[in-house]
Amino acid sequence: MSERINVKICDIESKMTAIFRGTGMTEEDAKVITDALIDAEASGVESHGIIRLKAYVDRIAQGSISVVPDIRIKGDGVALQVDGGNGLGQIVMSKAVEKCIKTAKEYGVAALTVSRSNHFGTAAYYANKMAASGCIGFVATNAGSTMAPFGGMETLLGTNPFAVAFPASNQIFCADMATSSVAKGKIRIYEKEGREIPLGWALNVNGEDTQNAEEAIKGILLPMAGYKGYALAMAVDAVCGLLSGANLSCEAPSMFQTDQLSNVGHFIVAIDIAHFIPLEEFEKRGQTWFERLKSCKTRPGMRVKIPGEPENERRAAACGSLNLLAETAAMVDEYSNKILEKKMGIG
Amino acid sequence: MSERINVKICDIESKMTAIFRGTGMTEEDAKVITDALIDAEASGVESHGIIRLKAYVDRIAQGSISVVPDIRIKGDGVALQVDGGNGLGQIVMSKAVEKCIKTAKEYGVAALTVSRSNHFGTAAYYANKMAASGCIGFVATNAGSTMAPFGGMETLLGTNPFAVAFPASNQIFCADMATSSVAKGKIRIYEKEGREIPLGWALNVNGEDTQNAEEAIKGILLPMAGYKGYALAMAVDAVCGLLSGANLSCEAPSMFQTDQLSNVGHFIVAIDIAHFIPLEEFEKRGQTWFERLKSCKTRPGMRVKIPGEPENERRAAACGSLNLLAETAAMVDEYSNKILEKKMGIG
Repeated sequence: MSERINVKICDIESKMTAIFRGTGMTEEDAKVITDALIDAEASGVESHGIIRLKAYVDRIAQGSISVVPDIRIKGDGVALQVDGGNGLGQIVMSKAVEKCIKTAKEYGVAALTVSRSNHFGTAAYYANKMAASGCIGFVATNAGSTMAPFGGMETLLGTNPFAVAFPASNQIFCADMATSSVAKGKIRIYEKEGREIPLGWALNVNGEDTQNAEEAIKGILLPMAGYKGYALAMAVDAVCGLLSGANLSCEAPSMFQTDQLSNVGHFIVAIDIAHFIPLEEFEKRGQTWFERLKSCKTRPGMRVKIPGEPENERRAAACGSLNLLAETAAMVDEYSNKILEKKMGIG
Repeated sequence: MSERINVKICDIESKMTAIFRGTGMTEEDAKVITDALIDAEASGVESHGIIRLKAYVDRIAQGSISVVPDIRIKGDGVALQVDGGNGLGQIVMSKAVEKCIKTAKEYGVAALTVSRSNHFGTAAYYANKMAASGCIGFVATNAGSTMAPFGGMETLLGTNPFAVAFPASNQIFCADMATSSVAKGKIRIYEKEGREIPLGWALNVNGEDTQNAEEAIKGILLPMAGYKGYALAMAVDAVCGLLSGANLSCEAPSMFQTDQLSNVGHFIVAIDIAHFIPLEEFEKRGQTWFERLKSCKTRPGMRVKIPGEPENERRAAACGSLNLLAETAAMVDEYSNKILEKKMGIG
């Protein structure tokens, strides 16, 4: 059983910002990465939340992620290319998304590729920002190989997640999904609970079907919806890898191989709604549609939710504090102490 | 058992063109719609192939589809809106795709919404054309409600299919998928063969799980990959319905309710590859990647294929002739004779 403790967001926020500042990062960038990790944690996506601080700080310390990246935006008009300068994905994306929104607001639509980047957290974080600016946002990233192509027994594709978001009057629609059947994090929960996983989630290391969670974690993920998820994973790799010049999933080192540059690629499309239809009309009609869907007659025990709603409900429920895994809180404290010691000349 | 017969493509093509010409359509438009239907048939997507001629011609005859539509392209720059003038989807899309490619070639990227259109056949047909022009093509359409939201028991969403395509040196990647678990056509095959369908494909009319193919056809389709397919269906409805001003799936009449205007919406994004990276580099690297995927160690009896390959193999195998359902060939002959009789003043 994993213990959990409540922490105040403002407390953990200042600790995390100080830790990132301690790596040599600018104040602004430290706030960006902290905000992204806390948002993931607050919205319930723990696997992309505060737990990641450790890997990021370690990679910065080892020099395999640039702490003050030279981020360059190339291209004029609506076709933009960003060289992430091997910065943290969140820092690179913060600049890329801002530029993409601004361009879409001017021209109606903009597409942007990112190369030489790193793990960027959740795609939803950026898509939500775009929706909040009155855009339809599409965000994708490739990732190291953990998934087999449909019919295959080797890991040649990443989980290659993507998110789509758009605004309505009272809420933002945000769908964020991996192209694998499930995330490894979900399999880990089954492992902890000693449960068998359903067929179709994963293969063992030998490429055979498995319902054993432990074997699955060491093994090979399978695409969602069979060949459809496989095709989507490839499409994401094409825009994030081929189009940007970054690594393809099958070329990228794992996030934990800290001796190699990740050269992860991302891809963004922003569509300014107002260039197509008055924004208020879009949002009103969207909200009416959401209400109709939410009032759908449902199967026993089910409720129809609009994508993004569960995450927003968790954000609202957080109300200034987070319920962290005790080990995650301890890890933050450990890194926080290291920074203090270093400042005081002890480290 | 359904009988099948071989017909020469050139023969069926001239019959079909004459039938469409006989409805009052221009020569150019008759060729466009004929080509789209034959391409679907040749690539193995029989449900969107020649069989559709009947519904299209009937709807034109009943006046619920404009045979000489007033298609208007609005918007300058890269944000384009097309009013389809209630024309056949294929005719409307032929103009829309051409404009979208041209704009992307000039600026790097273009997005286009279509309203007041009708069923457009396969999304792959258009995405393939965009890829052949050196673009990454994205094409989506909404459709009348046949699918329940995740957890729901009412049909409030269409199968809302979309396609993504891009070129490599020797082949085009083209993924075309409905956001439902399966197409109704596939359930019909199970029905004919007297087989049970797997759980998760459909509900009966009362919203209960069913493995009975006959019940499923009368019932409610379920989204692919659960909430993921549901979210994708909503995203497609947002760009095809909300953004374009066309009907949402839950507002659209069925293709067979011939007394109402469909007001179906489509959505296109074209990205000109050369604005991001030299096209040849993209295509070469893409082909090398495809070969690596195709050489993947596979599960017994499986082969890793690149999306679009099975359809291209069928197109190549067709080699000037099509193996049609006898009833489809008979239907074309029936309509062909009607046109002849009309011309000769018999009808």
